[in-house]
Amino acid sequence: MTLVNRRVLLRSRPVGIAQSEDFAIEEAEVPSIDVGEILVLNDYLSVEPAMRGWIADVSTYHAPVPIGSVMRSIAVGHVVQSRDAGFREGDVVVGWFGWQHYAAMPASAVIRRVTHTDLPISLSLGVLGLTGLTAYLALTMVGEPKEAETVIVSTAAGSVGSAVGQIAKILGCRTVGIAGGAIKQKLCVDEFGYDAAIDYKEGDLLTKLAAACPQGADVYFDNTAGPISDSVHQNLALRARVVICGTASVPVWNPRPSGLRVERILLVKRVRMQGFIIFDHEAQFSETIDRLASWVREGRLRYREDVLHGIEAAPDAIAGLYRGENLGKRIIKL
Amino acid sequence: MTLVNRRVLLRSRPVGIAQSEDFAIEEAEVPSIDVGEILVLNDYLSVEPAMRGWIADVSTYHAPVPIGSVMRSIAVGHVVQSRDAGFREGDVVVGWFGWQHYAAMPASAVIRRVTHTDLPISLSLGVLGLTGLTAYLALTMVGEPKEAETVIVSTAAGSVGSAVGQIAKILGCRTVGIAGGAIKQKLCVDEFGYDAAIDYKEGDLLTKLAAACPQGADVYFDNTAGPISDSVHQNLALRARVVICGTASVPVWNPRPSGLRVERILLVKRVRMQGFIIFDHEAQFSETIDRLASWVREGRLRYREDVLHGIEAAPDAIAGLYRGENLGKRIIKL
Repeated sequence: MTLVNRRVLLRSRPVGIAQSEDFAIEEAEVPSIDVGEILVLNDYLSVEPAMRGWIADVSTYHAPVPIGSVMRSIAVGHVVQSRDAGFREGDVVVGWFGWQHYAAMPASAVIRRVTHTDLPISLSLGVLGLTGLTAYLALTMVGEPKEAETVIVSTAAGSVGSAVGQIAKILGCRTVGIAGGAIKQKLCVDEFGYDAAIDYKEGDLLTKLAAACPQGADVYFDNTAGPISDSVHQNLALRARVVICGTASVPVWNPRPSGLRVERILLVKRVRMQGFIIFDHEAQFSETIDRLASWVREGRLRYREDVLHGIEAAPDAIAGLYRGENLGKRIIKL
Repeated sequence: MTLVNRRVLLRSRPVGIAQSEDFAIEEAEVPSIDVGEILVLNDYLSVEPAMRGWIADVSTYHAPVPIGSVMRSIAVGHVVQSRDAGFREGDVVVGWFGWQHYAAMPASAVIRRVTHTDLPISLSLGVLGLTGLTAYLALTMVGEPKEAETVIVSTAAGSVGSAVGQIAKILGCRTVGIAGGAIKQKLCVDEFGYDAAIDYKEGDLLTKLAAACPQGADVYFDNTAGPISDSVHQNLALRARVVICGTASVPVWNPRPSGLRVERILLVKRVRMQGFIIFDHEAQFSETIDRLASWVREGRLRYREDVLHGIEAAPDAIAGLYRGENLGKRIIKL
């Protein structure tokens, strides 16, 4: 029996954010697997803001996705065939399976086995996957929040941001969210428990931040960079920590754009600003996911999913993220 | 007997760097001292780049020097009269004695007693004072250099920079200095032992940095901010540490100037950037000065002094620093 695969290929290398026309969907035969390989049938594909960087033709933390190859992506699926001793048919696995239905992969493409199967397996691409891991590990390892401190989060209603806000509350902090538009602002307070939320699209961010953080922010979890960050930097407390986790508000980094200089603020306030990439911390994934899963079960860690249907939705899915059209972690159900 | 004091008062609050006309020299009677106070006759006054910030009318790490009062300064001198049990006539002390001949001060104005009296006491304002302390503690605590790593220093021939370069060499690092002009560039290599030195005034800094640091810089000790730093940021290695120690190349910070955004570099390279103020670390002063004094005696830590003569030199002394006219730590001999 020949299995037909559908997959999304990168067709061209965009300047800035990848658009639908940068991808092509094609059919191909599913290859047979070799010793040490597994065949996975994907249930859900992930869509990440970080994919912008994986595609870009500049030095980043991953080699750029080659033109003509399957779009790099994390996915969750079921093992349907295994020639590796570590896996059996029926295992639920998360890994680098790409934007496609069937993935014939070396067993090393698996990031981990999904063990919390009482919860929806799609969560392993979100709050129990890189999203939740990034929120928890970046906040605690770089942000180092202490009880009663004030934590500001940008893209506060987003998938990473909403988890950061809730985890900071669990750790005893005061939380201030920055989001775009009245709907997301309301979501921050009503659903994700922020103590205050600011709609940056309304303007006057500097004044609103000063009012929301009279003592300044001790931690700034930065998912945006850009003018939002320029305003937050102005409102940092002594010895604040800035977690550089994403740069969602700046579409093009080559050439590097300009913004307000931070050096004098860093010096006078003794601020620490540090970049974070989740893939440096795989040793802590398993223990962290157990902790996040408990909080999800207890109802202390809420999440939203933005589910697109069918692989046809993939080519426009990244551009849509940067248009800000999703509420919650964007995934594609196959 | 009435003693006449000569002192330098801050006359006006400058925008940017203080110029001669912002100060006035006047004579006044030396007051008698009270219980718990000492009278110090200053031998040397210090001139620091940081004085720019002490004078400025914006939030900094010290309250601004009030208009009409004696210019705040560290100085080294001899106790000539004491009504405090901790000090006796003849003690050599470093402290917040101001730009004046006689300082009648509470004993708490003393930062420390000068103990390495086999070495010139003027060094307690330089390589055995805040300059050397800043170089050693900022480099080791924030920069955390490891053996065989590459350390880039801006204002590399300056009093802090030259000490940083030599200490980094003692710690086993490769050192690259950035300085302005051929004389300072030569001094970096010939006198302070840098492995390479770049004259930023010659232009093409980006290419020269890439050539001098083919693997990128692991530590950037930043005394300048500004366009020099924009180029260095482009040449950072994975997990580099940036020590924000001074902002000498940017004369005005209010309103904040623009520069190239750093967030994407910090993210992709997992860089840590952190501000350092020496006054946070007084507990380590004594032990550090002992270490620096040994290196000076062994000839492993060289220094230059730029000695101005007489209190009349004080009003123009800060402006001169920012004109880059000094080679070595600027002090005023009374």
